Amino acid sequence: MNVLVVGSVALDTVQTPDDHIERGLGGAAMYASVSASYFSQPGIVGVVGGDFPAEHIELMKDRGINLDGLQIDESGKTFFWAGSYEGDLSVAQTLTTELNVFETFNPTIPEAARETPFVLLGNIHPSLQLEVLDQARNPRMVLCDTMNFWIHCAPRELEKVFRRSTVVCINEDEARDFCNVNSLPRAAAELLKLGPERVIIKKGAGGVLLFGGETFYALPALPLTHVKDTTGAGDTFAGGFVGATSLSREIDEDAFRRGVLAGSVMASFCVEDFSCRRTANLTKAEILERMGRLREAVRTPELQW
Amino acid sequence: MNVLVVGSVALDTVQTPDDHIERGLGGAAMYASVSASYFSQPGIVGVVGGDFPAEHIELMKDRGINLDGLQIDESGKTFFWAGSYEGDLSVAQTLTTELNVFETFNPTIPEAARETPFVLLGNIHPSLQLEVLDQARNPRMVLCDTMNFWIHCAPRELEKVFRRSTVVCINEDEARDFCNVNSLPRAAAELLKLGPERVIIKKGAGGVLLFGGETFYALPALPLTHVKDTTGAGDTFAGGFVGATSLSREIDEDAFRRGVLAGSVMASFCVEDFSCRRTANLTKAEILERMGRLREAVRTPELQW
Repeated sequence: MNVLVVGSVALDTVQTPDDHIERGLGGAAMYASVSASYFSQPGIVGVVGGDFPAEHIELMKDRGINLDGLQIDESGKTFFWAGSYEGDLSVAQTLTTELNVFETFNPTIPEAARETPFVLLGNIHPSLQLEVLDQARNPRMVLCDTMNFWIHCAPRELEKVFRRSTVVCINEDEARDFCNVNSLPRAAAELLKLGPERVIIKKGAGGVLLFGGETFYALPALPLTHVKDTTGAGDTFAGGFVGATSLSREIDEDAFRRGVLAGSVMASFCVEDFSCRRTANLTKAEILERMGRLREAVRTPELQW
Repeated sequence: MNVLVVGSVALDTVQTPDDHIERGLGGAAMYASVSASYFSQPGIVGVVGGDFPAEHIELMKDRGINLDGLQIDESGKTFFWAGSYEGDLSVAQTLTTELNVFETFNPTIPEAARETPFVLLGNIHPSLQLEVLDQARNPRMVLCDTMNFWIHCAPRELEKVFRRSTVVCINEDEARDFCNVNSLPRAAAELLKLGPERVIIKKGAGGVLLFGGETFYALPALPLTHVKDTTGAGDTFAGGFVGATSLSREIDEDAFRRGVLAGSVMASFCVEDFSCRRTANLTKAEILERMGRLREAVRTPELQW
């Protein structure tokens, strides 16, 4: 195990304009670890209830995901989320959120996993993210993902997590919201002041921006004409990013760029079906083909002038 | 002369949150031809009134712009636009539009210029753009730029222009509007069905997308923290695009990509000051430096996996 993923494992009911899924396998930690499993050996720290289907456990095990840190609280029910999308699927309407076993969850990294070099703090309460950081020993890289909800409910704790992260991963609207500026370069500069080495701003169909103090990288999203469900795309990106970054000997700008490439490709598969139906069953060739297409999409010849 | 630019030459009064300019040199054809002048020999087809300051004529001449096709209608006044920007400067509020000499303008390409190989149809009434196309003889490439106003007032004529263009250049909101779809890849596919070889979708600070039937290219905008006035940025992009494309022997995908690179860099200068104050006074070294930065911003290393 070299990538520790902390976050929710959930059951999701999702309605899209054309289709729906009932109590499908969801949650930030699930999406991220399934994605990371193609490039690394991830393990999950999280909790599910007694109602969690055994087939979901099997699916994650089949992907090689270490579940030693996944608590099973037989006395409660699994975190449940129901949402619906309209139009271009860019924003979900939350219909129901039942925290259930997450209400009393205390994340515990198994003793054997405390020195895991890569830590992915998926979208959960920032105070839980901080608890995990207190248990981790000298991680090489910490990525923090978050969402609007925590920006409004727990901005102080979230700022503490940002200060202790190597990479902050955030949506464009969340970045504007947290920093109270409209310009994304300005928002990134504000976030970098808190201490992380890099800030990743996710723009959905608009691609991804990677800002460092002296560096700037941008990668578009693959143009997809058939998007089914965008739930979990950000988590899938984060998982692919950390997983692929862990393949590099040096954790430098190029390693981060390769991470963005891998994360973007994994997210492009995620949105093509519900849950991890697409991302749990990919071949290396399929992934490499899309990486090649994305690299070609930004190939920029020099102007002979 | 190898690039013919048709469009408005205007006097603009612009108010931004921090500053303003009164009756500055403006107009689509001016912005585009000043930008193109770094890479090619542009000439303007347009009209100004008797009030047009001689210094503006001098500025354009100094940039090597051929003004044989610029009619001076002493009986009327120059096209005048007044607008204001708020917040992030992405959308202008039009306060005044006085067509003046443009009300009765009939574009006439000087006889000697009718075989100009590159034609840039700047943002004017589509029926005027069609008149120009009727006069041009076998252009190698026709780029059509437009704006929301014509999509609503003259959609039929505009579609005719698109059908006769090599490259259609359009804002993201305009593309969604014209095609009545939310997805930009779908909008591009719709526009390509009309016949152009390429569709360029401009996303302002979000960069530029270049779609062909089988090709896709994306270039981000340079991250700028100090943007003064976005007026003319799209015209400046179009001018740089056509000018740089004219440098390539083959007008192929790579030529178009080099055009997008040049156009994006010229637009990044345009927004840093009012009118063409910045774009009329650049060195080749300044332009090359930003091209290098943009190419570095999309450099995507392969994943060793």
